[in-house]
Amino acid sequence: MKNTIVSHRKKIHPRIYLDHAATTPVEKKVYRKMERFFTDNFYNPSALYHEGVMTRRALRDAREHVAGLIGALVDEICFTSGGTESDNLAVVGTVRAFRRANNQVKPHIVTSAIEHPAILASCRALEEAGEADVTYVGVSASGIVDPKDVRDALRKNTVLVSIMHANNEIGTIQPLRAIAAIIRARRKDTGSPYPYFHTDACQSANYLDTNVLRLGVDMMTLNGSKIYGPKGVGFLYVKRDISIDPLARGGGQEFGLRAGTENVPGIIGLAEALAITEHMKEKEAERLLVLRDRLIDRICATIPGVFLNGDPKERLPNNVNLSIPRVESEQMVIELDAHGVACSARSACKSADEGASHVIMALGTVTDETTGIIRFTLGRSTRKADVDHVAEVFSAVVQKITEATL
Amino acid sequence: MKNTIVSHRKKIHPRIYLDHAATTPVEKKVYRKMERFFTDNFYNPSALYHEGVMTRRALRDAREHVAGLIGALVDEICFTSGGTESDNLAVVGTVRAFRRANNQVKPHIVTSAIEHPAILASCRALEEAGEADVTYVGVSASGIVDPKDVRDALRKNTVLVSIMHANNEIGTIQPLRAIAAIIRARRKDTGSPYPYFHTDACQSANYLDTNVLRLGVDMMTLNGSKIYGPKGVGFLYVKRDISIDPLARGGGQEFGLRAGTENVPGIIGLAEALAITEHMKEKEAERLLVLRDRLIDRICATIPGVFLNGDPKERLPNNVNLSIPRVESEQMVIELDAHGVACSARSACKSADEGASHVIMALGTVTDETTGIIRFTLGRSTRKADVDHVAEVFSAVVQKITEATL
Repeated sequence: MKNTIVSHRKKIHPRIYLDHAATTPVEKKVYRKMERFFTDNFYNPSALYHEGVMTRRALRDAREHVAGLIGALVDEICFTSGGTESDNLAVVGTVRAFRRANNQVKPHIVTSAIEHPAILASCRALEEAGEADVTYVGVSASGIVDPKDVRDALRKNTVLVSIMHANNEIGTIQPLRAIAAIIRARRKDTGSPYPYFHTDACQSANYLDTNVLRLGVDMMTLNGSKIYGPKGVGFLYVKRDISIDPLARGGGQEFGLRAGTENVPGIIGLAEALAITEHMKEKEAERLLVLRDRLIDRICATIPGVFLNGDPKERLPNNVNLSIPRVESEQMVIELDAHGVACSARSACKSADEGASHVIMALGTVTDETTGIIRFTLGRSTRKADVDHVAEVFSAVVQKITEATL
Repeated sequence: MKNTIVSHRKKIHPRIYLDHAATTPVEKKVYRKMERFFTDNFYNPSALYHEGVMTRRALRDAREHVAGLIGALVDEICFTSGGTESDNLAVVGTVRAFRRANNQVKPHIVTSAIEHPAILASCRALEEAGEADVTYVGVSASGIVDPKDVRDALRKNTVLVSIMHANNEIGTIQPLRAIAAIIRARRKDTGSPYPYFHTDACQSANYLDTNVLRLGVDMMTLNGSKIYGPKGVGFLYVKRDISIDPLARGGGQEFGLRAGTENVPGIIGLAEALAITEHMKEKEAERLLVLRDRLIDRICATIPGVFLNGDPKERLPNNVNLSIPRVESEQMVIELDAHGVACSARSACKSADEGASHVIMALGTVTDETTGIIRFTLGRSTRKADVDHVAEVFSAVVQKITEATL
């Protein structure tokens, strides 16, 4: 019977993609919006003639659309080439602008130990160059930053606090509003515009409220490739009174924050993708939460010693991250692949030879080096039957690997 | 009779686009190659499963393709978000890497007064931050850099020479090989790996030889949007033994030079666009050269006092840049637009309120402030009839403006 189901599935649904945190397909409707901007409406939006004006209007409409969807003003949206660039722009841009104005004071950054590599690597580079000091606050065993730790880490020279909205590996949701309140109080006390508060919301945009006013952030990173939009495009929300330096200079596009001819089709696609995800996020979050917990329950019921990494409640509705005793992460991914399931052991933004995940290490709950990690991230295409099938296949895979190594 | 022709044109060819230096449409064949990477083969090329491996292979093939087309090795191609980013990466990356290794020596850059704003603005920012000194060599009245001026500008601490292959406003072709020989000789004398030699080849790639070995460059900027490929993607060729720092850090993509999930559809499109332009460049250059000179001749024969900016021979086969006495640049663009012709007064990468073109100013030939500039840049869609029509319309436009201001 099991074989029949498997071979039946193979015919009508040969592969199950559960790596939506790595990237998402471009939604058909998004793609159709972008299409004509490649071959027909291809003009440079800076041009003075009719076609340039039309393109400039399309770009302005997309910017207004994006701004409206996150509660921002139109000149607070700086389009970039994606999440990594936006994160770097927030971190490096803040430090460079501060140093230009205050060259006697070495700036200080507060971030967390579980941030995306784009934040961590840019912070480390600033430390190594002697341009900034950085405090990496830890997280609880369930992967949550304590706002009090952020408050305690603040110094007189803290120019930036960067805490992600939801983690890309374990899906834990960070208490941004509480951190924002601490930062606001600090700024009120000192009368300084610093520290700025930045968040990377790439993983949360499909499921959580990303209204910048309600979150209380000064900068926010978002990208297209995680919200069923195009790759190679994203934006940084930059509040009006925030002063950051550009990473790349030239023609003065994006209010002087990011030079280069605008990626018009990408921006059009990003705006449409964000509109769609905003429209469906509540229902989709509800739907996936049920599937997520079903997958967790089924796996935990069949595999001995397995446990969920990251808080079970304060987590994205599409994220399942598990520790499996005595099984290698990569081997699970490869075996699952052979059985028609695409998933990851950790962030796709880390190369295979970098050792253990910095996020899992920060939890302090996985002390046994032989414990493997697996991440399933659900998405729009995920159905109940997929979840049941994956739970079944995964149990078989783990059993097979465990038996082979005994 | 003239009206008949005009109204006939309006029906079958309502607009003539002569601003190919600003941007080009995506070639249909290029677009078809990209298409499936948006909605179907959308996977993250860093993923371990089958779909990731397939995407990684497509990316590797595109990189090999690009490398082969310019005479480079596969690990010498760093994909970026476009020409501006590549230029910034070359300039800022060279300076930052040098300063990390030699923090006692202030690095020095040699560039020209007519470079693209991406080069000039990044150089100026480094000067203002006290990170580098910069020498801007001038050009001849015909817009050509003298290699001897580059040689004379070299200092012991010169880390980079950046000279564009062909100018974006006046289309003049720079003597890269002669400059490369000077730099090679200097490096041989001193035994230093510096200065590096970078060129921005965004404007030349459609028409000139861009083989990096024959040009003798260490770094070369190219982008998609000028070669009938997609916007938002480009690359920097970086010779193997060159040491530059990244602008954006994170997941370690692009050999650590440029983090962020790869823009796979964009890169696929860029590779195809470069292949097409390499294949057709010789014939297309011949074809456009005839049309270019026909347009120049016709305009010069009918408008009194007009003259060509930039060398008549050492110039791109698609570039016509003219000075017109006593006519405002913008007025010409707007009137031509009203008559169905799309063209520019200068680079689209400068906003309207920035005053006179820095390229025209550097020539020193336009001393009268009332002289207007117009740039026509031909492309794949340009036919002889277009050129004749534009010459006719333009003469009428200039006459009309001149008479109105008398």
